[in-house]
Amino acid sequence: MTTVSPPDDIYWMRRALALADRVLFTTAPNPRVGCVIVRDGRVLGEGATQPPGGPHAEICALRDAQHRNESVEGATMYVTLEPCSHFGRTPPCVDAVLAARPARVVVAIGDPNPLVNGQGLARLREAGIEVVTGVCAEEALAVNAGFISRMSRGLPWVWMKMAASLDGRSALHNGMSQWITGPEARADGHHWRARSCVVLTGMGTVLKDDPQLNVRGVDTPRQPRKAVVDGRFEIPEGARLFDGAEVIVFTAREDAAKVARLADKNARVVVLPAQAPDRVDLPAMMRWFAQEQFNEVHVEAGAGLSGALVAAGCVDELLLYLAPVLLGDAAGMVRLPMLEHLDAAQRYEIIDAARLGADMRLRARVPGTWRQLMQRVALPALA
Amino acid sequence: MTTVSPPDDIYWMRRALALADRVLFTTAPNPRVGCVIVRDGRVLGEGATQPPGGPHAEICALRDAQHRNESVEGATMYVTLEPCSHFGRTPPCVDAVLAARPARVVVAIGDPNPLVNGQGLARLREAGIEVVTGVCAEEALAVNAGFISRMSRGLPWVWMKMAASLDGRSALHNGMSQWITGPEARADGHHWRARSCVVLTGMGTVLKDDPQLNVRGVDTPRQPRKAVVDGRFEIPEGARLFDGAEVIVFTAREDAAKVARLADKNARVVVLPAQAPDRVDLPAMMRWFAQEQFNEVHVEAGAGLSGALVAAGCVDELLLYLAPVLLGDAAGMVRLPMLEHLDAAQRYEIIDAARLGADMRLRARVPGTWRQLMQRVALPALA
Repeated sequence: MTTVSPPDDIYWMRRALALADRVLFTTAPNPRVGCVIVRDGRVLGEGATQPPGGPHAEICALRDAQHRNESVEGATMYVTLEPCSHFGRTPPCVDAVLAARPARVVVAIGDPNPLVNGQGLARLREAGIEVVTGVCAEEALAVNAGFISRMSRGLPWVWMKMAASLDGRSALHNGMSQWITGPEARADGHHWRARSCVVLTGMGTVLKDDPQLNVRGVDTPRQPRKAVVDGRFEIPEGARLFDGAEVIVFTAREDAAKVARLADKNARVVVLPAQAPDRVDLPAMMRWFAQEQFNEVHVEAGAGLSGALVAAGCVDELLLYLAPVLLGDAAGMVRLPMLEHLDAAQRYEIIDAARLGADMRLRARVPGTWRQLMQRVALPALA
Repeated sequence: MTTVSPPDDIYWMRRALALADRVLFTTAPNPRVGCVIVRDGRVLGEGATQPPGGPHAEICALRDAQHRNESVEGATMYVTLEPCSHFGRTPPCVDAVLAARPARVVVAIGDPNPLVNGQGLARLREAGIEVVTGVCAEEALAVNAGFISRMSRGLPWVWMKMAASLDGRSALHNGMSQWITGPEARADGHHWRARSCVVLTGMGTVLKDDPQLNVRGVDTPRQPRKAVVDGRFEIPEGARLFDGAEVIVFTAREDAAKVARLADKNARVVVLPAQAPDRVDLPAMMRWFAQEQFNEVHVEAGAGLSGALVAAGCVDELLLYLAPVLLGDAAGMVRLPMLEHLDAAQRYEIIDAARLGADMRLRARVPGTWRQLMQRVALPALA
């Protein structure tokens, strides 16, 4: 098996990744996969995963080649994720790939789904197909960090969106917090909501801002679910987020009558008490999300819940919008237990810094978690 | 006069700017200027401003051409700042340029020094030399924002260095603040100290950290001056910053005996009381700096003085180092008067975002002030 990636392989894999990017909002709970079939520098067919129940990327690309009357025999297939080898809602992609008889299959990352996990690649190799792995692996993991996280550690990939001034203030002392950042940053925030499986907030935000918690201004056929952490089960039944779309309310208190009333509003109440009274067990909540096939959680909350999630180790990535303004003594971004030493603070790795209008967007992630996922998807390459 | 800048002019002006950059630490109170003389795409001579009393960039470049036995007649001279037309510590550069008889002189920005201010360019034009202005004007202003600010508005260019966590915290609740950022960010901070004329701090920092306030780890033949804002004149006479180098202490209280004792430590005491008791008049301090030929002020202070300078409109640029860490309820970056509305906050324009090791450096400046200086240096082009 080859592990070297000639420039051509990187070029075509990037095209496959761009296809995966186009289905960012629609494949959940399945991964977003892109596939390009190439011979002699010419595309024979390409495609990306269709919404759940529809064909996967490999099938789309093979059908596209068929439509163009191109034979795939002897060609190279670029796939951003290892082809599946099991019957799910659709038959195994590996069978279709084997039938098409390409000479080479180039795969970005392995699929840690226990039903796949290298078996797809093994079957291709057994059939004499050259298999190359690890091309553009970092980018491919980034597209599907949620799916990979869920499959390999039983947790979703959780990012936390925050907007603040350069001095880390997210609201004035009088609570005024709307429009710290400009329209470009706010639109970008909605893009991140749109790609997530669920938008999570806390009761402080519900009471203060009464948010709709939906995606606006982004062209998406699918809305993420909405969720609220509400330890004391105090959520007002007239909150704006109850607009008919499914809402999940995590609480630490039982109240069967309220549960029934909220069910009429399409709200599902999940009781997950923590050790402390009236607190939701946040790690248990994340495990619950993964069990329910949520890949990516978008957190958009106040300093209380944001800090509690960080302190509980539930946040994998920060999505921080900074407005070029100084606010001084105003509300902070995260409430955290007091630290006695800097070494005790959670460190992140900055992975991206982008201008959005007058604002900056910084992305930072927990380096250990990312490395762990990278190792997990690289495993089949060592087989 | 031509205002179009062909790509060649930009290329050579960038070379001249790179030469100016090499004398960033040594020309104060004079501007940093670079000069390149070119004919048919070949450099005939080049140079940059020497330390005060030494030759200016144009003279260095002309002498360099002489050393190479190159005639400058008919060539193009690129200068990052309008050549001086007055006798200072050295004779007017314009005379030497005229004597060398180049065909073209390309100038980035005009010199608002009332002794120059377009007269240098006028004399060149009168002699039949083609003069082009405004090439790389933004970059040229950035190299000499301090000199231009002092000449055109009687104020230095003031940047404020801050280091904080992603949530804008500069110290833990127990005061621990050392090493929030990594070695690359700290080294970069010393580079900014080195290019400044004075490093300014407040008494809170002197009492808490007892800083040396000098440049370390940067190869510079010149140390900036040191200055402390000390309204109550409480500075400990054994403070580490009194190491023989000149220190300026701004205070609001008279104490002739202490002034005399500090003079022995090479400290100069400047009494500048504000309306409020025991407060230094910060805008008056900045005017004092300009009168004393300080071009650039590097502020490195705690939340109190930093906030007071921002509130008094004394800060032109923020130099913000962000470490990828969250600290929660710890010390803030700037203490500011409480705002009732976001519109009342000082807005900045982000001009640069750079990675420094694991940290980010953001530079942001007050857009109105910058535009005002740009207009000032563009004036000769309209003559």
